[in-house]
Amino acid sequence: MNNKIYFTPGPSELYPTVPAHLATAMANKIGSISHRSQQFKDIYAHAVNGLLQLLQLPANWDILFVASANEVWERAIQNNVERESFHLVNGSFSKRFYEISQELGRKATKWEIPFGQGFTLAEVEVPEKTELVALVQNETSSGASMPAADINQFREKVDSEALIYVDAVSSAPYPEFDFNQIDSTYFSVQKGFGLPAGLGIWLVNDRCVAKAEKLKSKGNSIGSYHSIPALLSKARAYQNPETPNVLAIYLLGKVVEEMNHHGVATIRQETEAKAKVIYGYLAESQNFDIAVAEPAHRSQTTVIANTKVSSAEVIKKLAPFDMVIGSGYGNYKDTQIRIANFPAHSLAQIQALVYKLRELFG
Amino acid sequence: MNNKIYFTPGPSELYPTVPAHLATAMANKIGSISHRSQQFKDIYAHAVNGLLQLLQLPANWDILFVASANEVWERAIQNNVERESFHLVNGSFSKRFYEISQELGRKATKWEIPFGQGFTLAEVEVPEKTELVALVQNETSSGASMPAADINQFREKVDSEALIYVDAVSSAPYPEFDFNQIDSTYFSVQKGFGLPAGLGIWLVNDRCVAKAEKLKSKGNSIGSYHSIPALLSKARAYQNPETPNVLAIYLLGKVVEEMNHHGVATIRQETEAKAKVIYGYLAESQNFDIAVAEPAHRSQTTVIANTKVSSAEVIKKLAPFDMVIGSGYGNYKDTQIRIANFPAHSLAQIQALVYKLRELFG
Repeated sequence: MNNKIYFTPGPSELYPTVPAHLATAMANKIGSISHRSQQFKDIYAHAVNGLLQLLQLPANWDILFVASANEVWERAIQNNVERESFHLVNGSFSKRFYEISQELGRKATKWEIPFGQGFTLAEVEVPEKTELVALVQNETSSGASMPAADINQFREKVDSEALIYVDAVSSAPYPEFDFNQIDSTYFSVQKGFGLPAGLGIWLVNDRCVAKAEKLKSKGNSIGSYHSIPALLSKARAYQNPETPNVLAIYLLGKVVEEMNHHGVATIRQETEAKAKVIYGYLAESQNFDIAVAEPAHRSQTTVIANTKVSSAEVIKKLAPFDMVIGSGYGNYKDTQIRIANFPAHSLAQIQALVYKLRELFG
Repeated sequence: MNNKIYFTPGPSELYPTVPAHLATAMANKIGSISHRSQQFKDIYAHAVNGLLQLLQLPANWDILFVASANEVWERAIQNNVERESFHLVNGSFSKRFYEISQELGRKATKWEIPFGQGFTLAEVEVPEKTELVALVQNETSSGASMPAADINQFREKVDSEALIYVDAVSSAPYPEFDFNQIDSTYFSVQKGFGLPAGLGIWLVNDRCVAKAEKLKSKGNSIGSYHSIPALLSKARAYQNPETPNVLAIYLLGKVVEEMNHHGVATIRQETEAKAKVIYGYLAESQNFDIAVAEPAHRSQTTVIANTKVSSAEVIKKLAPFDMVIGSGYGNYKDTQIRIANFPAHSLAQIQALVYKLRELFG
């Protein structure tokens, strides 16, 4: 038996009802049903309709299920970029999307600022011919965040043809996007949705669909079984082209149903209240400093701190108390810690973590 | 509570221990652990080492984890075909691989025979410049199978540069390949391994790796996070580039461990013994006929029969007895039935199904 609470930035603590839902899924043999059956379509529809309600998506949006956020990066470039993409880069994940565009033979340009800093959008110059602008609402590696209000205004800065993609991998469902002002967002389920890994959620509007169809009609290859048109033709019949991760779609529907009962507004308020507890402690701690200088750019869902004691030492000292936090990412592995603040984490758990950190490290 | 036994060709009956392993995974919080942790690497290594033992892979082979067999088709073309692939087509799935090659802009050619027939390999003429030959050991749509002995001799017919790919999606671990005579094989876990869907297993030898690296060094795009080199660099450290379906890899390791205890030779013998029970009944049935005429080409793992009563009626009449079989595929939906014979299906279950079919339909 493992009694640890995982405050790691993903995979992270599971939503508390997940083990019970998995047991029900096994009792009902969900792992054996056909991915073309009405029973599966109902499961798929339940997950999609729950997400539509939770995120309040307009009618011109569709929800596509792929395997990971990494896959979304690749499919986005294949389907929506013929020549050129543009990336705001301030950490490892925003940089990886930029690299993937290059690996797929596109011209990728970037607007790069140092790790841990947020963007002043007024300064960003978007190249004229950009077909896709990659924004990162929450840079999981550094904890630098872009306020949803800034993202909702970004359209003014770009050419009318450009598609605005927003990485919400480790922040959804927290950020409140104006879905009329962006064209795509995506996330993976093992972060804010508190599920086991193995499913990526890709939200696209009709402009993304039209661009994919335009590239296809020109004879460009936009992939095969997971092109936007291929995904969409099945998604609208509540299926996937391939046999998907059925159990994950089942669990997603169950957890999103519970989130909807709770209410997304409440989830957002609670996220901010819990983040305030963590940042409040970090600001006065003897050992930790808030990593992101500008308060408006501090992530509400993945809180990063510089640490005087090595991250390994912090993690080790928390272990006897069944609390797990993340080390820093990449070059910051030793000198930073990362604390996830997802809907699965209760205020009481966050308070207990902060209490213990204060006791151990001042 | 669902007490049905699924004889469907995948998703199918889960290996009987899967619910217990999932409960253990939840108790140990496997869904929350980091995909870069030693704990995860041990889980990954356990699954890989189990497969190495089960399939008796030589040292020049690697095991890669992707999301589905559909993904293997796409990655295979991206990584191993610059211009031209060649496909033996005798059903819906072998045809789909051929189409995917075309969708990715390659010249795909095919050697096509009617649905439900098997290949006489002596007749097949392989084009000279083919870089990849796609064989299908078991055509899930039609139940036509290619004996492993034929596959093991196929190398003689092809150019020395060509890579031989073998679809064992719905037959592994049954077919006994000579891994020195083929270059890649692949399967998904929701068929012969009795697991929930959401993981594709791609086995490649060093020739596949070398070809991918050659294309990359020439400046060809071979994909991004799931190119062979990208997968391999992480696989050899027991990880994936992205956060993979951790639970599925955990379950795979557990089920393969049990298969190894049972012994692959025993599994193969039992598969043949169970198939004999089904085919024996079909041969003398009043309502059913074996769909594949040539005995040597009859699948041992997905048995297909023509039915006089519609497949819907057969499925409906079995339902009160908690037995589920598959309808025919595509155009054969009404006129054929499909019965899976995987390691998760016991001889007693197969006997009970045959007994009931005889009682209901003669």
